[in-house]
Amino acid sequence: MTRFVLDDRLAADTHLIGDLPLSRLLLMNDDRYPWVILVPRVDAAREVIDLDQQQQAQLWLESAQVALALRERWSGDKLNIGTLGNLVPQLHVHHVMRGVDDPAWPGPVWGHSPAKPYSKKMLDDTLARWREVLPSML
Amino acid sequence: MTRFVLDDRLAADTHLIGDLPLSRLLLMNDDRYPWVILVPRVDAAREVIDLDQQQQAQLWLESAQVALALRERWSGDKLNIGTLGNLVPQLHVHHVMRGVDDPAWPGPVWGHSPAKPYSKKMLDDTLARWREVLPSML
Repeated sequence: MTRFVLDDRLAADTHLIGDLPLSRLLLMNDDRYPWVILVPRVDAAREVIDLDQQQQAQLWLESAQVALALRERWSGDKLNIGTLGNLVPQLHVHHVMRGVDDPAWPGPVWGHSPAKPYSKKMLDDTLARWREVLPSML
Repeated sequence: MTRFVLDDRLAADTHLIGDLPLSRLLLMNDDRYPWVILVPRVDAAREVIDLDQQQQAQLWLESAQVALALRERWSGDKLNIGTLGNLVPQLHVHHVMRGVDDPAWPGPVWGHSPAKPYSKKMLDDTLARWREVLPSML
């Protein structure tokens, strides 16, 4: 896992929250949705099934922790969890808290419309909120 | 788990392949994509995190088995796995083998365009292919 390098497009579209035991946790730079991405720090993984069984179990444990944080600390109506990778081949798992009044509802957020980046203030606040829950996930 | 009843819309949009230990495995009635859906037979579950830890582990084990079958027995370029549920509240996990020449590529299949139902012959063949691999998943 030493050769892990974050994909350029993922790096450009997100802000770093921090590292969980297996995955890097990223905040999608789109203030319209509570939206974070888990990227397992495993070189050359494209699919969940490219991970070994222990890594898969750890990924889904981290996914559940992120989902619980989204449900408990951000308001919304439905969690959307997805790993697509049609544009970015590096394995990554989206977690989005959806609301019935969000711009893409009830369709998927992926491919819907250009992101609306966070303001500096909102970004700092949102990263701080995530970093507050991060220690409980370690 | 005795009160499990498949959601009406899921029932209308799919054909039954069979039951895995936790989940019902359904074939999406759209011949443009190799597309199957896992529905944990757990009453009132909407989110993955509504399942207990053992059920979550079993769901993702079944998901990996389905993903391996899709990769080994259907050709394609990228697996898409997602649980959205914005329209159908019953917890269900999509597994779609995508191809760079499929109608929705590189966007998501969800919400892209109306399904193109299988012909009788293609449906029988596809269900038979899935039922051939089903025993190895039990």
